[in-house]
Amino acid sequence: MPRKIVIDTDPGIDDAMAIFYALRSPELEVLGLTTVYGNAHTETCTINALRLLEIAGRPDIPVAEGAHRPLVSRFHGPADFVHGKDGQGDTFLPPAAAKPVGVHAAQFLIDAVMSDPGNVTIVALGPLTNVAMALLLRPDLPAYTREIVLMGGNAYVPGNASPAAEANIFNDPAAADIVFGAACPVTMAGLDVTSRIRMTADDLDRFATFPNAESQHMARLLPCYRSFYYGQLGVHEILVHDSTTISWLLHPELFTVEARPVRVETEGISRGKTWPANKSSRPDSDWEGRPAVNILVAANGPEAVRVELEAFAR
Amino acid sequence: MPRKIVIDTDPGIDDAMAIFYALRSPELEVLGLTTVYGNAHTETCTINALRLLEIAGRPDIPVAEGAHRPLVSRFHGPADFVHGKDGQGDTFLPPAAAKPVGVHAAQFLIDAVMSDPGNVTIVALGPLTNVAMALLLRPDLPAYTREIVLMGGNAYVPGNASPAAEANIFNDPAAADIVFGAACPVTMAGLDVTSRIRMTADDLDRFATFPNAESQHMARLLPCYRSFYYGQLGVHEILVHDSTTISWLLHPELFTVEARPVRVETEGISRGKTWPANKSSRPDSDWEGRPAVNILVAANGPEAVRVELEAFAR
Repeated sequence: MPRKIVIDTDPGIDDAMAIFYALRSPELEVLGLTTVYGNAHTETCTINALRLLEIAGRPDIPVAEGAHRPLVSRFHGPADFVHGKDGQGDTFLPPAAAKPVGVHAAQFLIDAVMSDPGNVTIVALGPLTNVAMALLLRPDLPAYTREIVLMGGNAYVPGNASPAAEANIFNDPAAADIVFGAACPVTMAGLDVTSRIRMTADDLDRFATFPNAESQHMARLLPCYRSFYYGQLGVHEILVHDSTTISWLLHPELFTVEARPVRVETEGISRGKTWPANKSSRPDSDWEGRPAVNILVAANGPEAVRVELEAFAR
Repeated sequence: MPRKIVIDTDPGIDDAMAIFYALRSPELEVLGLTTVYGNAHTETCTINALRLLEIAGRPDIPVAEGAHRPLVSRFHGPADFVHGKDGQGDTFLPPAAAKPVGVHAAQFLIDAVMSDPGNVTIVALGPLTNVAMALLLRPDLPAYTREIVLMGGNAYVPGNASPAAEANIFNDPAAADIVFGAACPVTMAGLDVTSRIRMTADDLDRFATFPNAESQHMARLLPCYRSFYYGQLGVHEILVHDSTTISWLLHPELFTVEARPVRVETEGISRGKTWPANKSSRPDSDWEGRPAVNILVAANGPEAVRVELEAFAR
């Protein structure tokens, strides 16, 4: 029996890779995609989600559009300098034939979880607004959720949206603080591990050689993403970021986990910083009573890349 | 010619060790001590500063009392669980004969610097209230200050007063943000390095064997400090913390330095976190225009301990 997942996403080039990785993994069954703002505006992300499913030959999988802005702050705008103006590497492909379903992403997440209580995992690849809204709409949802796995945050490494914060959490810190408080297994795949899972130029060049539509689409998207990393890091490699959530579901043995409560800073220059509790000389009142989050703190990056490329090659 | 320093301090057991280390180092000339709240209330710290100078046979060195509370927030109270109720390991020794001078610590710091412009270093071992007040009183003081070296902050490691913050910076984050903005060399000896400079039980047992008053006093103070570390870490070793500033002045070759602007969070659950700027995908406006701070990010701990013990042994 494959493991059931629903993916909340803002595609996004690395989102595309993660969605394809999940779809090409027989160990996983994708119940649907829900969309959020982040790498692009929500409307664009919905168009992209539908297009990715069509490319993968899975137009049967439903897409539900979600929040257009953070819970209690404003959206600072798309990361078009990373993902292109269309969120898909400035490929400007025509839209898919399918349309989104007529239900809000938050309700879709609830319905997906309740369709098989205890067996559905929420995979979150963008700002956590939709997931938080689902938890606000249905406070007992964690009791029926197998796990929430999210790409976001930084426990012991600097941020990327600011010195303090990772971009997904920076975009909606209030939502993230709600999600990290959920009383179900919550796994944080943040910069501590995503910064260690790098595809080299040789890895990336392989996509064009794989004879399937998903890999061919990745080969179209990747030049934009690569040029961002070359501009920022001066190297011909990329961080796969979002795929790390799928790697965790398929190969947890590649990761080191630290279980600690996590709070999120919502204000000041530290806005969006994810703070694990520590053994403090003063009472950690802000962390008290919060459930432990599975923080991924170390990863076997080369092996994670190897098995992901295998999924695209087969 | 010895290097001139003035030490702002809240003694404190590790402050005592740092002050003695400085006094026993012929490479340094201690112009005075200024006192602040932190490990104990300011009045207690003043008594302790005078007593430490008497023990060291240097009652000629002036002590100036300073701030009793942070610039814009309240003092959360002494760290008596670390340093004892008297800030000196519950030794409750009688007070020294000398009295503090009749000038505020902030003015004393200014006068000390201006007594030999360009050649005086401020060593700060506690919350930075007095140093910030000196900079507020005399905004051009950095032009005449050789260096400000401070024990405080955490760049890339968790805090100790909270998951976010180190205790000295936590106590007055607004003052710290002023000091890190000073246009003179500012060196941050924070938890990144002080957590790597550990004296073992064998190291600590040596103090009682050194036939000088400073070492004998340390041997009286250390049981209290050791029992805190044993309770917290379960090991018979301590972090020297404040002495790290003196190690930096005497042996900069033992440290790795990273030069970046630093801002301090003043609010929220991240209060007191010191944030180095990083290469961000968004403009770091809160860090713009700020001078680079010398952040100590790595240290040769065993060698720093060895040379410090040599200073006590000789």
